[in-house]
Amino acid sequence: MGEQHQGFGDRLASAIGLTSPLCAGIDPSSALLGQWGLTDDAAGLATMARTVVAASAGVAAAIKPQVAFFERFGSAGYAVLEEVIALASDAGLLVVIDAKRGDIGTTMEAYGEAWLDDRSSLAADALTVTSYLGIDAMEPVFDLARASGRGLFVVVASSNPEGRALQEAKISPTMSIEQSLLADLGRRNRAEIASTQCAFGSLGAVVGATRSAGQLDLASLAGPYLVPGVGAQGATPEDVATLFAHCSPRSVLVNASRSILSAGPDEGAVRAAAESLATELTRAL
Amino acid sequence: MGEQHQGFGDRLASAIGLTSPLCAGIDPSSALLGQWGLTDDAAGLATMARTVVAASAGVAAAIKPQVAFFERFGSAGYAVLEEVIALASDAGLLVVIDAKRGDIGTTMEAYGEAWLDDRSSLAADALTVTSYLGIDAMEPVFDLARASGRGLFVVVASSNPEGRALQEAKISPTMSIEQSLLADLGRRNRAEIASTQCAFGSLGAVVGATRSAGQLDLASLAGPYLVPGVGAQGATPEDVATLFAHCSPRSVLVNASRSILSAGPDEGAVRAAAESLATELTRAL
Repeated sequence: MGEQHQGFGDRLASAIGLTSPLCAGIDPSSALLGQWGLTDDAAGLATMARTVVAASAGVAAAIKPQVAFFERFGSAGYAVLEEVIALASDAGLLVVIDAKRGDIGTTMEAYGEAWLDDRSSLAADALTVTSYLGIDAMEPVFDLARASGRGLFVVVASSNPEGRALQEAKISPTMSIEQSLLADLGRRNRAEIASTQCAFGSLGAVVGATRSAGQLDLASLAGPYLVPGVGAQGATPEDVATLFAHCSPRSVLVNASRSILSAGPDEGAVRAAAESLATELTRAL
Repeated sequence: MGEQHQGFGDRLASAIGLTSPLCAGIDPSSALLGQWGLTDDAAGLATMARTVVAASAGVAAAIKPQVAFFERFGSAGYAVLEEVIALASDAGLLVVIDAKRGDIGTTMEAYGEAWLDDRSSLAADALTVTSYLGIDAMEPVFDLARASGRGLFVVVASSNPEGRALQEAKISPTMSIEQSLLADLGRRNRAEIASTQCAFGSLGAVVGATRSAGQLDLASLAGPYLVPGVGAQGATPEDVATLFAHCSPRSVLVNASRSILSAGPDEGAVRAAAESLATELTRAL
């Protein structure tokens, strides 16, 4: 060890600067595989995922495979995921694994070993996590991410309405869960920035584009955002620009999946859809 | 479809009656593989997991593989998990997958297809889930579980101290998140009981044995509990009996992992440790 890695926040900012704020979500549901004329199995999954990676190279900053759609096919699906991670890295795309892992102790460490360790066949650039078991239980993966130049995105405020009651619940009379998570992650990021002189910390947050501005102090994170909700879920690039007006545009990664994948199966058409959205996002942010 | 399945709550109650309230947790961490003299790879993982399954047959009601420890080895680890699920089912053990999945929409459906669908190589008897994105977002897997005779365990009150602040946060002035989850699951289970005449609903809850009695109306669940925290985390079988005094003993499944696995690598020694704990639990509950 002892090596110096550039932190994930800064690596993401560079990637956004070179390409766009777009993250191409790879969500190969049974329905989408059918729309592309592919078989509902690991072979169909591989074809769709390879096409999205090829179409995103140079256009998007990152891809985001949704692990559930690989897990549907068991070990064969995970073998496809290993291939997709390697292909994307070779194509210069960052890989954000959407797995929403969350556990305690040695289990959380094991998730870190699976997704954030060079020795793993699944090693990616960042992982989404959820904190129902407590943000402090994630300390082992926070440390591992920083040490390896990788990142985490903690789900703070999701894009779906069903999440509101829990995420807005009060941990004290004046503090909601989502506010408290942002404040906690911001403290950790500022400590990392102070000690390594990076511009952005490694610990990101997921905040849905469907949320309204003013409810959360988003600028306090000092780290990257992963933003779902644009396109099929109803938010626009302008909504994202308004919501993150006080954040650096290079810290805002906007995920879109259905609006890109529904252009398939032709790779050129998928690339054109991604380019169109990337241009819109770059202009708005 | 249209088939009639016995629901998961009743299947679990039968299994507990035939064997014991013990659930043998399979948590093959790097440290434990080393203690057993096994290699830290998929082959070592397979040896440990097969041993625990063989040692638990007829002693425990269920096994609970912790997916993180399989994911560490990527697709090769998932292939071992597929084998372990099949072996355990053949040995008459219920399989509870500890994966703490939680997402929305088609993603949540995909998790259901991975873990709760006959056609999947990973199909198990029950799956643990977390609800940071909202309990209502889980509707698709609730439906799938009931339709296929499978179950879910929603993490309500975890055994670790770091989870307290979030789980006790107030969604209304008089209602905590954990209380509200229990009430919601209880409503759904009572509707299932009314329509199918089962004794217990399919929707379970995870409540740590380290919690104290009186904070939660545990009897209102009308479904099964998965209880971590006994042994290495400090709680005793008597603590479990006190906490669940108002619940049917056949609805309480008590997980233990380190206290069983640390007896290895000899299968007979692992079986003896499991038998000893099973006897203690049966006596206490």
